[in-house]
Formats: sequence, C-alpha cells, structure tokens
Amino acid sequence: MQLSINRSIFLEELSKANKIIDVRSVVPLLGGILIEVDVDKMTIISSSGTLSYKSVLNQQNSDLEIKEIGRILIKSKHILDMLRKIEDDFIDLTSIENNELRISTKNIEFNINILDSEEYPLIGFREKGVKINIDPKSLKQALNQTTISIYEWNKKIALTGANFKTEENNLIISTTDMHRISYKKIYLQNQNVEDINIIIPYKTIIELPKFIEGAKNIELVASEGYASFIIDNSIFQSNLIDGQYPKVEGVFPKEFTNTITVDSRKFLKTLSRADLPSDDGLAATINLKLTKEILFVRTNVAEIGNFEEEFKEFSIQGDGDLMINFNSKFLQEAIKTFEGEEIELKFVNSAKAVVINKKNEDNLKQVVLPTFLG
Amino acid sequence: MQLSINRSIFLEELSKANKIIDVRSVVPLLGGILIEVDVDKMTIISSSGTLSYKSVLNQQNSDLEIKEIGRILIKSKHILDMLRKIEDDFIDLTSIENNELRISTKNIEFNINILDSEEYPLIGFREKGVKINIDPKSLKQALNQTTISIYEWNKKIALTGANFKTEENNLIISTTDMHRISYKKIYLQNQNVEDINIIIPYKTIIELPKFIEGAKNIELVASEGYASFIIDNSIFQSNLIDGQYPKVEGVFPKEFTNTITVDSRKFLKTLSRADLPSDDGLAATINLKLTKEILFVRTNVAEIGNFEEEFKEFSIQGDGDLMINFNSKFLQEAIKTFEGEEIELKFVNSAKAVVINKKNEDNLKQVVLPTFLG
Repeated sequence: MQLSINRSIFLEELSKANKIIDVRSVVPLLGGILIEVDVDKMTIISSSGTLSYKSVLNQQNSDLEIKEIGRILIKSKHILDMLRKIEDDFIDLTSIENNELRISTKNIEFNINILDSEEYPLIGFREKGVKINIDPKSLKQALNQTTISIYEWNKKIALTGANFKTEENNLIISTTDMHRISYKKIYLQNQNVEDINIIIPYKTIIELPKFIEGAKNIELVASEGYASFIIDNSIFQSNLIDGQYPKVEGVFPKEFTNTITVDSRKFLKTLSRADLPSDDGLAATINLKLTKEILFVRTNVAEIGNFEEEFKEFSIQGDGDLMINFNSKFLQEAIKTFEGEEIELKFVNSAKAVVINKKNEDNLKQVVLPTFLG
Repeated sequence: MQLSINRSIFLEELSKANKIIDVRSVVPLLGGILIEVDVDKMTIISSSGTLSYKSVLNQQNSDLEIKEIGRILIKSKHILDMLRKIEDDFIDLTSIENNELRISTKNIEFNINILDSEEYPLIGFREKGVKINIDPKSLKQALNQTTISIYEWNKKIALTGANFKTEENNLIISTTDMHRISYKKIYLQNQNVEDINIIIPYKTIIELPKFIEGAKNIELVASEGYASFIIDNSIFQSNLIDGQYPKVEGVFPKEFTNTITVDSRKFLKTLSRADLPSDDGLAATINLKLTKEILFVRTNVAEIGNFEEEFKEFSIQGDGDLMINFNSKFLQEAIKTFEGEEIELKFVNSAKAVVINKKNEDNLKQVVLPTFLG
C-alpha cells in the first residue's frame, strides 16, 4: 500500500472511526481500524461489534493519490497523535513488510507497528431497507433533547434505547425511564414515508451526534435488526434492540389546572441555586409552591442546610394553588432541552406529571413525574 | 455577626482562602475557613498547617457594611457554589445561633450549617523579618519557570523546595532534581537588599502563583522558619525547609563546543512529534544528531515504532559534530519556560549537560543532563 492524502481530512475520518472502538472488546482485533485501499478509493472501517462505521475517501473528497493498493489494520491512538502534531498539508502512507506503516512528509518519517489485517472480521453494511431522509441538524438536536430520559441500565430492555417511529409525515423519537418521558416530532419533507418502528440502543444515540456534525445529508435505512445512517460518504450502523416500545403518548396528561410561562434560562438559574448537593451524591428534591404572584422554590438537605427563592417572573393561567416536588436533576435536564426558549409548564396536581413544551409549540414535550419525598 | 458585602469580591477572597485547605488534614477544623468580623473589617483566615492565608476586607475594598461583629467557622464548598450561582451584586451574611450562616438577597435565603469556631487553632502571621519587594509579574513568571526542576518526593529534603537567595541586587531562585537545574535571576530595583538564603517548599511554589494574579505589590518577609508573602491586603505564609541548598552555579558548564540558536516554538513542535509515548508511561529518550546543516531528531520505542525528523531551522557555532540523548520530558519542559523566544542550546559533549538560555540574555538558565540510554 502506498498513497498520498490530505492530512486533516484523513485525521478527521480516522478520528470518527476511532470513536466507536471499544478497547475492552472480547475480539481484540476490533481494537484496530481497517484501511482498505483500492485503485480509486480508500475505505476506513471500524466496529465495536454493535456499532460499525465505514467511510469512503477518494481523490475528490480527500486529495487521495494511490500508488499501490493494499489492506492494513492499524492501532489508531499513536497515529492520531502524530497526525495532529504534523503540520504538513499532505502525508504519504506506505506499508512496509505487512508489519509497519510509514507516515512521512518531506522532513518527517514515522514508522509504526501495525496489526494483522488477515484476521479482521468481515463487517456487513446494510444499505437496503425502509429509508427516510432526515435533516442532519434536526436529528442532532432531537437526539440531544431525548437522550436524557434513557436509563442505559433499565431492567426493561426495550427502554434502554430510543424509539424511532414514523407517523403520517413525521419521525417521532421517544424515550422514557419510567420517571420522565422525552417526546420529539420531526417533520419529514418531500418524501413518501414508510412505516418504521424501531428501538435504537442508548450507546448509538450517544455516539451518533458526533458523526452528524457538518453533515449535508442523512438517510436512515431500517432493515432486519439494523439501523444504518448513511451520512454523506460514510455509514454509521447500529444493531437494534428487540422488543415492543410502549406507547408513551397514552400517559400524557391532557387537562391542566395551572399553566405557567417562564423564560427557561431564568428559571434554570433559580433551579440551579436550589439544587443543593447532598453528601451521598443523590439529586435534591425541589419543592415548588405556586401562588398567583410568587413561585416559591425550596430545598432542604439535612446535612447542608436549606434554600428558598421567590421566583416572580412568570405568567399564570389557573387557580395558583399548587404544591409539588421534583427530582432536581430530572426537572433541570428537561428544561435545558428547550435551549433558552420561553416555555410552558403545565400542572394537574401534586401527584401528576408536569408537561413542558415551548410556548405555543409541541414538537418537543418533556414529561416529568413528581416525587413524593421531601 | 451581620453584614453586607460585595458578592464577587467576597467570592474571590474566599476562593483564595479555600485553595490552600487540605481536606485530609489531621486537624479536621483546618478544613474550615475562619471569618472574623470586627467593627471596621472582616478577616478571612485559612491554613493547611504548613501554608496559611489571611485576607483583610473593609468598606473601601469590598463595600463591607458591618451591622454586628462576630466570628464564625465555615465549610466553604457549598458556600462558594452558592456565591457563584447568585447574580446579585451584594449579599447579606447573618450568623444564626452559632450553628448556621444565612446568605441572603432580596429574593434568596440560603441557610447553611457551620462549624464551631471556638476550637479553631490560633494561626500566627509573621510580618517582621528580612524584607524584599518583588515585582508580582516577575515573581509569577520566575515560579513557573523554575517549578519544573523540583521533584517533590526527592530523598534529599533540601531539594524538595526552591532556593531563594539574594546576591548583590538580585533575587536568585534555583531548583534542581539532580537531572536538571532551573536558575532564575530577578533584579530588585530601588532597595537595599539584605541577605536571604531560604528553601521554600514545592507545595508553596505551586500555590503561590494563584495568589499573585492581579496583585499590585508583593513583599517577601523571611523570618525564622517562615516566609510570608504580603500581597496587597493579604498574607500568604509558608513554612520553610530546613537545610543547606547546594550551590548549583558550580556545576554549570562554562565552555561549549557547539551552540545552536533556534525558535523555541518551532523546535518544541519537532520535539513534541518525536515524543512517542511508551506503554509503561515513561518519557521517551530523544536522540539528537547534530551536523552543520541538519539536526536529526530521533526516537525509537520498541512497542510502538520509530520517528525521525530533519530539523533545519537553526544557526550554529561550532564544529557540528555531536550526538546526544535526552529525556524527552525534561528537554521539552526546559524549553517551554522560554515562552516562544529565540533560544540558545549550548553543548559540550554527549556526557555533559546542555545549557539553555534566551539569545543574548542569561537571567534564566535551564540546564539538562543527557541520558545514556536509547
């Protein structure tokens, strides 16, 4: 193998491939990244077993000039370090006797030991199945807004992932840990949307946003047991979770006694002050006492002390008579997903979940159950 | 105790007092910060046993308004968190029944448990002794430039600190771990300089720069067993290390066979590329082969690979015939202290230390012994 390539693009693609590698994998060779060089392209492949990544580089997207084809398996850590430290625009890559890779520029020569590519498992990438196109920015935002309600170690396996389903011309992403629900609707433009109803693992939901950054197009391909995200010139593929995801819409309260409208940024600052840490690391219980004029925000943590703030910057619809407790972490995480917008908090009573949405819009809903302690 | 104070100034002073606290102290109350309020001032005191800090706040420097004098001992962590989160310019502090402190503003009331101030040990601050005035910026820079050569766990106790001594009208700070020496001269303006020759502990050298930031004046007071740094309205005081510090000037090579002049920033980049990490975490050995035209920079780490760069951007005085090995960490740390300036590296032979200084200036010298491995 011998070639020349744009250093920063190669570095970027190798970094992405590196992100999903599980160094504690039971298959040690999965700790490596496979580089296959053909007459007209370089393919970079990595896999953790459940997540796999493939990126195709060519003359056009990375100034690739191939002098000799080949196939090598590299350990990426030191190569990434070196690629970051080199300042030249282009680098030469040469494999030497199947056990070394040479990275060189005019003044630099770095020879690094490589792995045996013969033993690397064959990774199948699925590009056929039910397809939908998703706007990259909307998807990234939706993932960040819904991740909070997944508990990775939930005993109900179906809940250890995010539910992606289509409904009319919408993609609906929902997550829940039984204490809270995140529900996001993305409108899918200009396409015939086929039925999808799949559960994508937590780990995938966490990693996927890192691969979307700067992407122009994303196509989700759902096939038996797999979801493949075709992101420009690369594929990010995940196993699916088997099972039936609960219909979370069914548990949303529909009628409310008190709705308050607040600037989410200001309200978060108050909640953050009230969020007294406890020595055992558990989240504080925040007590909200609503009146027509003042929302009293209170916490009391025995070993530290107590806090009370009079929050007044809200408007209210309702009788202004409510006392309710929340897990401070859950409430803050839910409100943060609205990114500083004006939001509505809709209450029923002290035992029912609060429903939070952006003022006059319901594409994103955060539902948080109250706690009965404190 | 009852008073009102400027929040951000109180936060800043409390943060400083908090920096030296050792939470694992054998005297548990030293985990607290003492606040003494008199008719016209507030004194903040903290101590780790070997390091002590005192800061005096008054109406002029912190908008302090005292309504009732008093003395309390606080645990600072949650108070600092709260002071950071509050946005009001001023806060009220009130002690309640000797076991709570109330921090309040118009809308906020935070009651926090405090410690028993009766048991807090008496800390003596020494302001009498041999005095020198040091420019704060010069001192801060000097500390950062010399810290690298102290090995905190050195078996020779004298070497676990920095030597401060006066010579003519200079303060000389020197440090060594036997493998390298840092030597810095600060010219002391407009004063009669008395004799000082003390050893200040590593921990003090590490912490002191954090207290100098933004200071207008610094006076070092050396007394029996103590060094006190009077920094504007505060005192930072340290125990001294007993013993005689070696005369490091004696071991500096004086005559050289080869002197090269390089841009320290460019040379550092090459050294950083050559700095291959090894699996056991030890620093690589960097081999320098000097010729008249090219400085070959090489490393070889068995389990990773090898590196060679041809560094050409230097001028040379000498025969251009030298091969020498260095601990890559020691060489880089020494060169970094020159902050991007043009520097001279002066060599004798492969067994003698290199002397590094800024081109045409010797207020700062870094001396690094070669290694014989690699």
